[in-house]
Amino acid sequence: MLAMKIQLALDRLSIEAAVRLTKQVEAYIDWVEVGTSLIKEFGMQSVYALKEAFPDKIIVADMKTIDNAVYECQLCYDAGADVTTVMGVSPLPTIEACMNEAARRNKQVMIDLLNTNVEQVQQFIPYDAVLCLHTSKDEQELQHGATSSITNIQSYVVQQQNLKLAVAGGVSLNTIGNIQALYPSVVIIGGAITKAENPANAAQQFKKYIS
Amino acid sequence: MLAMKIQLALDRLSIEAAVRLTKQVEAYIDWVEVGTSLIKEFGMQSVYALKEAFPDKIIVADMKTIDNAVYECQLCYDAGADVTTVMGVSPLPTIEACMNEAARRNKQVMIDLLNTNVEQVQQFIPYDAVLCLHTSKDEQELQHGATSSITNIQSYVVQQQNLKLAVAGGVSLNTIGNIQALYPSVVIIGGAITKAENPANAAQQFKKYIS
Repeated sequence: MLAMKIQLALDRLSIEAAVRLTKQVEAYIDWVEVGTSLIKEFGMQSVYALKEAFPDKIIVADMKTIDNAVYECQLCYDAGADVTTVMGVSPLPTIEACMNEAARRNKQVMIDLLNTNVEQVQQFIPYDAVLCLHTSKDEQELQHGATSSITNIQSYVVQQQNLKLAVAGGVSLNTIGNIQALYPSVVIIGGAITKAENPANAAQQFKKYIS
Repeated sequence: MLAMKIQLALDRLSIEAAVRLTKQVEAYIDWVEVGTSLIKEFGMQSVYALKEAFPDKIIVADMKTIDNAVYECQLCYDAGADVTTVMGVSPLPTIEACMNEAARRNKQVMIDLLNTNVEQVQQFIPYDAVLCLHTSKDEQELQHGATSSITNIQSYVVQQQNLKLAVAGGVSLNTIGNIQALYPSVVIIGGAITKAENPANAAQQFKKYIS
């Protein structure tokens, strides 16, 4: 019995469609991610709207911060986010500023490990953050769902003790078994739920699989 | 006589204040940057509003794309942007997707070299993109305006021929002389104009200095 949480990633949708879709699946998911595409298209009103519609869910604002850390954290925490994301490839002062702002506000940070190397990831191990093994959308399109670009850091990360790990990028019912073997705290699922013919049914299947 | 362009970076402002401020200085500046903070707070309406107010200026959407490249390029080109930014620390497929989408739409890409290394930058030299030497806001706050984190790539970049170079990060009337020595095509100025007591006067001084 694993305490793996499901984070629903909402991308390339209107705010209204994102709320509607989340309502269909809310019984089967734990965290709600306001995707970067919603934030860049609609701004902070996307975060406000999702928090307002789902006040009892953990709301993750996928800000992908890479500079201007305190300002960006404040924007999305003020809008109702519980977790914000920062890129692991940022200069370290940016990541530290996010950690400090989250601690000050009693909020959380997810560090997106996209395109990082082991040397960078080592610096994040002492942090009280969720570390996210992430295969980007653009890499998935080239590699047909393979996760080769994260292989180097993946083998390092899974050796660490007591990490809060998240896994993201093309997660499907076909790949969930491999992901479960990494014992993540959070598995991030987007299109496999949001683009399913029956999103509630798809979400229920994921939920059943990991319980 | 250098053909250096001034890009006004609009950050941490309301859309209305950004338009008002740009109106005060438009005679002295060439490119108008819709800053990442405006995009993340207000979404694409920030880009629409600046292009509508300044249809004859080059509008740069500082998207800081690091994934989902085609979608993000389409969002901001559709909103009126002439140039979009992509992070040099992205996986290469993301940067290539931006280059392809810009070529298809007859638009431009600025590659932000924040926290890149020489090996990464070498891959960008053949591209028809503007390369931006960028000291981040968060680094500036720690280093009091020093630009040490870009020293490695700066010495590599300035040796290249026929580059379209931009320089960003804490540019002031005190540092513009050093920046001019790099022969950039674009110098990106934010707070030194937007936070000046008299923005028009500050912009005019920059314009006079580089003409």
